Amino acid sequence: MSRHVLVLSGPNLAALGSREPEIYGTLTLADIHDQVSAAAADLGLTVDCRQTDDEAELVGWLHEAARASWDVVLNPAAFTHYSYAVGDACAHLVGCGSRLVEVHLSNPAARESFRHTSVVGRSATGTVAGFGAGSYLLALRALAGPSAAANRDDRG
Amino acid sequence: MSRHVLVLSGPNLAALGSREPEIYGTLTLADIHDQVSAAAADLGLTVDCRQTDDEAELVGWLHEAARASWDVVLNPAAFTHYSYAVGDACAHLVGCGSRLVEVHLSNPAARESFRHTSVVGRSATGTVAGFGAGSYLLALRALAGPSAAANRDDRG
Amino acid sequence: MSRHVLVLSGPNLAALGSREPEIYGTLTLADIHDQVSAAAADLGLTVDCRQTDDEAELVGWLHEAARASWDVVLNPAAFTHYSYAVGDACAHLVGCGSRLVEVHLSNPAARESFRHTSVVGRSATGTVAGFGAGSYLLALRALAGPSAAANRDDRG
Amino acid sequence: MSRHVLVLSGPNLAALGSREPEIYGTLTLADIHDQVSAAAADLGLTVDCRQTDDEAELVGWLHEAARASWDVVLNPAAFTHYSYAVGDACAHLVGCGSRLVEVHLSNPAARESFRHTSVVGRSATGTVAGFGAGSYLLALRALAGPSAAANRDDRG
Amino acid sequence: MSRHVLVLSGPNLAALGSREPEIYGTLTLADIHDQVSAAAADLGLTVDCRQTDDEAELVGWLHEAARASWDVVLNPAAFTHYSYAVGDACAHLVGCGSRLVEVHLSNPAARESFRHTSVVGRSATGTVAGFGAGSYLLALRALAGPSAAANRDDRG
Amino acid sequence: MSRHVLVLSGPNLAALGSREPEIYGTLTLADIHDQVSAAAADLGLTVDCRQTDDEAELVGWLHEAARASWDVVLNPAAFTHYSYAVGDACAHLVGCGSRLVEVHLSNPAARESFRHTSVVGRSATGTVAGFGAGSYLLALRALAGPSAAANRDDRG
Amino acid sequence: MSRHVLVLSGPNLAALGSREPEIYGTLTLADIHDQVSAAAADLGLTVDCRQTDDEAELVGWLHEAARASWDVVLNPAAFTHYSYAVGDACAHLVGCGSRLVEVHLSNPAARESFRHTSVVGRSATGTVAGFGAGSYLLALRALAGPSAAANRDDRG
Amino acid sequence: MSRHVLVLSGPNLAALGSREPEIYGTLTLADIHDQVSAAAADLGLTVDCRQTDDEAELVGWLHEAARASWDVVLNPAAFTHYSYAVGDACAHLVGCGSRLVEVHLSNPAARESFRHTSVVGRSATGTVAGFGAGSYLLALRALAGPSAAANRDDRG
Amino acid sequence: MSRHVLVLSGPNLAALGSREPEIYGTLTLADIHDQVSAAAADLGLTVDCRQTDDEAELVGWLHEAARASWDVVLNPAAFTHYSYAVGDACAHLVGCGSRLVEVHLSNPAARESFRHTSVVGRSATGTVAGFGAGSYLLALRALAGPSAAANRDDRG
Amino acid sequence: MSRHVLVLSGPNLAALGSREPEIYGTLTLADIHDQVSAAAADLGLTVDCRQTDDEAELVGWLHEAARASWDVVLNPAAFTHYSYAVGDACAHLVGCGSRLVEVHLSNPAARESFRHTSVVGRSATGTVAGFGAGSYLLALRALAGPSAAANRDDRG
Amino acid sequence: MSRHVLVLSGPNLAALGSREPEIYGTLTLADIHDQVSAAAADLGLTVDCRQTDDEAELVGWLHEAARASWDVVLNPAAFTHYSYAVGDACAHLVGCGSRLVEVHLSNPAARESFRHTSVVGRSATGTVAGFGAGSYLLALRALAGPSAAANRDDRG
Amino acid sequence: MSRHVLVLSGPNLAALGSREPEIYGTLTLADIHDQVSAAAADLGLTVDCRQTDDEAELVGWLHEAARASWDVVLNPAAFTHYSYAVGDACAHLVGCGSRLVEVHLSNPAARESFRHTSVVGRSATGTVAGFGAGSYLLALRALAGPSAAANRDDRG
Repeated sequence: MSRHVLVLSGPNLAALGSREPEIYGTLTLADIHDQVSAAAADLGLTVDCRQTDDEAELVGWLHEAARASWDVVLNPAAFTHYSYAVGDACAHLVGCGSRLVEVHLSNPAARESFRHTSVVGRSATGTVAGFGAGSYLLALRALAGPSAAANRDDRG
Repeated sequence: MSRHVLVLSGPNLAALGSREPEIYGTLTLADIHDQVSAAAADLGLTVDCRQTDDEAELVGWLHEAARASWDVVLNPAAFTHYSYAVGDACAHLVGCGSRLVEVHLSNPAARESFRHTSVVGRSATGTVAGFGAGSYLLALRALAGPSAAANRDDRG
Repeated sequence: MSRHVLVLSGPNLAALGSREPEIYGTLTLADIHDQVSAAAADLGLTVDCRQTDDEAELVGWLHEAARASWDVVLNPAAFTHYSYAVGDACAHLVGCGSRLVEVHLSNPAARESFRHTSVVGRSATGTVAGFGAGSYLLALRALAGPSAAANRDDRG
Repeated sequence: MSRHVLVLSGPNLAALGSREPEIYGTLTLADIHDQVSAAAADLGLTVDCRQTDDEAELVGWLHEAARASWDVVLNPAAFTHYSYAVGDACAHLVGCGSRLVEVHLSNPAARESFRHTSVVGRSATGTVAGFGAGSYLLALRALAGPSAAANRDDRG
Repeated sequence: MSRHVLVLSGPNLAALGSREPEIYGTLTLADIHDQVSAAAADLGLTVDCRQTDDEAELVGWLHEAARASWDVVLNPAAFTHYSYAVGDACAHLVGCGSRLVEVHLSNPAARESFRHTSVVGRSATGTVAGFGAGSYLLALRALAGPSAAANRDDRG
Repeated sequence: MSRHVLVLSGPNLAALGSREPEIYGTLTLADIHDQVSAAAADLGLTVDCRQTDDEAELVGWLHEAARASWDVVLNPAAFTHYSYAVGDACAHLVGCGSRLVEVHLSNPAARESFRHTSVVGRSATGTVAGFGAGSYLLALRALAGPSAAANRDDRG
Repeated sequence: MSRHVLVLSGPNLAALGSREPEIYGTLTLADIHDQVSAAAADLGLTVDCRQTDDEAELVGWLHEAARASWDVVLNPAAFTHYSYAVGDACAHLVGCGSRLVEVHLSNPAARESFRHTSVVGRSATGTVAGFGAGSYLLALRALAGPSAAANRDDRG
Repeated sequence: MSRHVLVLSGPNLAALGSREPEIYGTLTLADIHDQVSAAAADLGLTVDCRQTDDEAELVGWLHEAARASWDVVLNPAAFTHYSYAVGDACAHLVGCGSRLVEVHLSNPAARESFRHTSVVGRSATGTVAGFGAGSYLLALRALAGPSAAANRDDRG
Repeated sequence: MSRHVLVLSGPNLAALGSREPEIYGTLTLADIHDQVSAAAADLGLTVDCRQTDDEAELVGWLHEAARASWDVVLNPAAFTHYSYAVGDACAHLVGCGSRLVEVHLSNPAARESFRHTSVVGRSATGTVAGFGAGSYLLALRALAGPSAAANRDDRG
Repeated sequence: MSRHVLVLSGPNLAALGSREPEIYGTLTLADIHDQVSAAAADLGLTVDCRQTDDEAELVGWLHEAARASWDVVLNPAAFTHYSYAVGDACAHLVGCGSRLVEVHLSNPAARESFRHTSVVGRSATGTVAGFGAGSYLLALRALAGPSAAANRDDRG
Repeated sequence: MSRHVLVLSGPNLAALGSREPEIYGTLTLADIHDQVSAAAADLGLTVDCRQTDDEAELVGWLHEAARASWDVVLNPAAFTHYSYAVGDACAHLVGCGSRLVEVHLSNPAARESFRHTSVVGRSATGTVAGFGAGSYLLALRALAGPSAAANRDDRG
Repeated sequence: MSRHVLVLSGPNLAALGSREPEIYGTLTLADIHDQVSAAAADLGLTVDCRQTDDEAELVGWLHEAARASWDVVLNPAAFTHYSYAVGDACAHLVGCGSRLVEVHLSNPAARESFRHTSVVGRSATGTVAGFGAGSYLLALRALAGPSAAANRDDRG
């Protein structure tokens, strides 16, 4: 039986691809969702890709995943930096036994200083950032592997 | 012709696996290097895996990669949090056209607060953290893809 | 004529009781609402218990109470720490003459440091924290008394 | 052909005028909208005035303006101080070529210290604050002029 | 057998009621103690009400309660903000199995910023603030209930 | 009888227009003063436009306006960020009943972080920033209206 | 009838004069008290000079002065920097109508940085620092004058 | 031969007395200068009273005093909080052997937080604050005494 | 002639050993004092062991040691982190020529962050922390040696 | 069988004794090593004394001790304040069951503020500082005792 | 044709040499100007040496240099640490194509911490500090060379 | 007899000139060393130019200079910002009587904020920054002059 993964994207991501295509490319969120679906099939996963600008809807989806024991790939976008509501929902999700991979299209550490702070990261199983649509694909692959449990120690 | 990737690990990582195996597992850095080599072969890459506790040696390897136009997977371990020398070497590497993926076995955002600060991240193409040995494997895969250039914009 | 009190709970509280019951107990928000209703009857109050993950809905309920001159018991949950929108709605409520009691199931001062900051507390008439469902019941009792006006001075 | 401007107001502003009229005046948001519409007509602009307590709805309206190439007058109210989601939507709007004027009824710099921080301002073309309903009218006028592009330099 | 509760008040509280009675009311600490005693009798508790300006005496009383396994209602007044000695005594008390309710006449979160910091709160079972003498009465009631153990989780 | 307004500009603004005209435009401060004078005539105001690099001279002009009960449009330029002497003179001006509009050619919130702090703003009636010469014109218009008193409340 | 002034000195001041007389002089606190008494007689005041290392005793003396409507000259010594209990007692004293002059033998602003912070100063009528025993004498003279009410404004 | 003292007042102090006399009194700086001159005669001192809004002029006067070995009474007003130029001139003055008494009409410690920081105080022999015109008179008296050298030690 | 050492312990240390003996051991402060006395005899020292929760009493004991030229072993416990009164008494002690060794049962650097700050350490000759009762014994031995003067330089 | 202890000294300590002997004494690190060896023999320990300026070499020695289950006396010198690599190696050492005593010749708390921060202390069993060569000798003695386990509690 | 350089010195520098000549030397600013003129002749430069305590005059001279395309050697003295007006004038100067060398007689990094912050440095081409009059001479030499353009990169 | 100067360069400087020559120029560190040698000969100095990425090697060279009483020109590159080991070695060098000039190719004050902090500067005799290879040449010249002792005072 294939595992199910919820692939969630936060505020402003629906506008991807509509702006200055010569600079940012013409890849839209729909395109990313198509790539994610194709990759999931290859990895033996089923996925459900959703986007919302609404914090409450995002919290609800995280609860849904917690109840269903689904893993989650989450691009919290701007919520990363202030939404303790999303952060608490993530903590709840992981506390219920699901795994959570935080993804970002770009590398927040290389951008404005307000993007260096995450209120979501304390609960994430892992993070993938900086690879554009590839961040989602790598996160899926991480969840498809035998174990995403961190080999946690004091050495790196 | 296959691409070549330098896979570098920083201080204290040679001790991996030697301590409390019932807790941390028995995976050693040699085991990780074996997994990396196997995965590289699958991905059509050649790799060279090295570890050092020595900041100067790590800086030297980053320069070597810059001269040879190799991509780098780097687990800077404790250097992440204070070594501006490594940070400047990374900036040089990326400025020379190589790609750099920062990896961590565990998720620094979920650990002590001093681990939330990175002086290396400003130059990294991307980051993968929290998947144990898997972090290295996902980083390799990111470099094997057609493009790791971030689809950078203001939306996430 | 009995007084009417709005009892409001913020994000993630609907999930109460669904997670690790051997640790957190099996008390759900519905159970708390039942206890609140029973206690209100004893105290000669009528209550209306609501929960939402949605900041805008919570703001709307606070405006509704302001218009109707109802007192409010509010567990702002994660909104406590960042939602100036909820904070301004609370200031509006108290400015209109209603009383507002901020409640928390646990004691934020004994938890992570980000929970030590409240952007709601500047407007609250009073606070009750740390008694689980009991926090709601004590807050109701405070509102049922002859006066909840603080005996405010410089001594404690 | 007249230009179209979206005039947006954030959380708690629907309650304007309902509280202590002897202090705050009896001017409601509807009254402000009427003044705005009248002024727009004088200036040869068409306007659409909307208010919401909902962050996601506000983000959506900003995207709508970005797609339609409308300019925006925005009173972000409490969102000013924490909503990076609204901030990113503003950055998207301006990046698409629209102009954005941030307005405030009162002067945030003269109020509580938390109101001195703006997460929206980094993208605004300009700001008008402290003139009550007049802030909206002056913002419209700024947009009606030949150019609102700042004469930006190091001197003031 | 009735349970015994120590009701302790810190520095400057003996002066309550002596200053500007038209503003602060004529309620003295003796009056509060009378209300506390009456309420305790109703709740089936015995109480011992004490006040001191002396940090060492307060520490001693907390040790006395720890040895006797009494619960404590504590208004630490100004000690709240700097006395790690009282904070450590509270930690000792709770570590010995007693319960501790921190109370304040006014709501510290609504006053000067130095009152927003508590060095006592990290050990308190719960907190009641802002209800004048009522803060003490609600605290007693909390201790009289079947359990004051917080229903602690990540949701509020 | 027409009202009189002092239009004051601070340090470095005399150099406007002399540097890289292809980038910053050729608009000089004299040009701005001409636009201001023309607009004032339209609005039924008389104006006196002055510029100085000298903090003491600026303080003197603010006192002159206070004695004469003139309103002031002030571009404090670099003084914005450190001159408490100008800040105190502004407080004196407003305390004497005059109105003060702070203006900036560019939007300080969109520039270097040291420009985000204002020691003048605490006294300003209102602020207009980001519209180049237009900032001065909008400020004049604000002062020409029936009332610049802020419709101050907690909602935005 | 002569006015009565309490002259209070805080911790470690009893040791004055006992240490390295070739450096610090041989002036003891008793000598200062003698000078204070002589000066008080000249000024038509009666004084009562007391010293304590005990925070609670100092709080008690401030309450005694508040009840008796005496003015106070206070050298809080080390308590200046952390004792909110003394600070609240000072606020109570001034709230009861007495005047309070804070004195220091040396000038705290010219010493270690921890001495630059005062938790007492918020309530003081005035301050005299840096004149050794003279600080006490000047403070007495200030209280002997017709009025010590500050000519408070924004100019210095 | 009488000693000579320069009595200097900083920015905005010339406006003293001109604003809301029912609140701030009608005492002007000229009145203060008259009181100072009278008191100086009583104390056997000669004085020269000057005021300026100009930082450079104030620096020049401090140099003049340094060259002439005059003592100085200085009310730096707003310069207190940022003018390192005045601070360095004060350090020069005291380094040349003159004494410097910093005075304030009001007590900065009881006002806005920006007034709690002094960049001048590190060099002052002593400070007198909070006594209105009396602050100047007490400062003169301190300079008229046999020695204003602080009895500096670790006790207060 | 044997040297005399005062061995002082601060607040809450009298409760040592009374709490959860299976965790913290059954060693009481009396037991530590016995070990200290025995060790002192071996080292040719006489000791006087005292404990107090009272800041003023501790200050008095430090003055007593200063007058008698005794060395001191001090466990300031919670006073370490805020009592500038104890800190000033320690500075006085060392200024009078005595030596002071600060001891802690546990290692403050390995505990909560508030324990990382010491207001006493600036005066201590040396520090011993983390060895339980052994910290006192090592401190005695340090004082029994020929010289405890630090070999102070820039190398460690 | 005697226990073995590694005695390690960090950067710049090899220069000890070579500089201004009339001030710092003529004690060299070799002299300290001789004293340490003599004391070890007395205590029934064997020691190996090493010094390095090289962070990687120091990390390697700590790993060697971890593998061999040796205790360590470590003077991290300047590494104390920034080397998270050494800090992680110390954590690894203690995690493997060895004990670690951090020593300093001088008392860092009495020196420049950058020396008040330790990134090593979080892992140390105990600390001895301020006794020159004696710090090493006391540390050895601590390790020679029956147990160096801290009697850790909340009281000091 | 020789190049022209403006050599500017800020507040308090006119007093150089007048104070404690046995400590600070007898070198006056006039002496420095003589040395500068002699060195300029050797280097084929013409110079104009000026000093002012007046911020506005200094701003004016920087504008004069910008208009005339002169390079500038500037010792901003105390203005270094707070005068954004001078900082903006420097930015204007460099933006107009002149070069600016910031000089200091002493090394600010080795002095009080407030001297570690520069609001001027962001625009300086280069800096020379710590060589007394030599700082000016080295700065001239830097400007006399073929190019003072920094070889700017990430390596030091 | 000519004086000898050690010219030291820190991490990443060996890579100078190898990257993007059209932007950064083709000047290598070897070229800079050649220029330094030529200039030294002109100035009657002998020099020894060395570069290392290794902190320990750099510390060793500074000790070598201290023993030989050589002056040092040091470009600490990235070590500037964190290596207290290099900082302590510099303090040792200067304490032994050598002079130390800190140089930078670019002006750190004009770059990223982390480059504004120096842990080396507290010991430097002087600093030269921003002139590319010229920084080294000017530093040599400073050391060749009769005295590099700073004319240190409070004026700039």
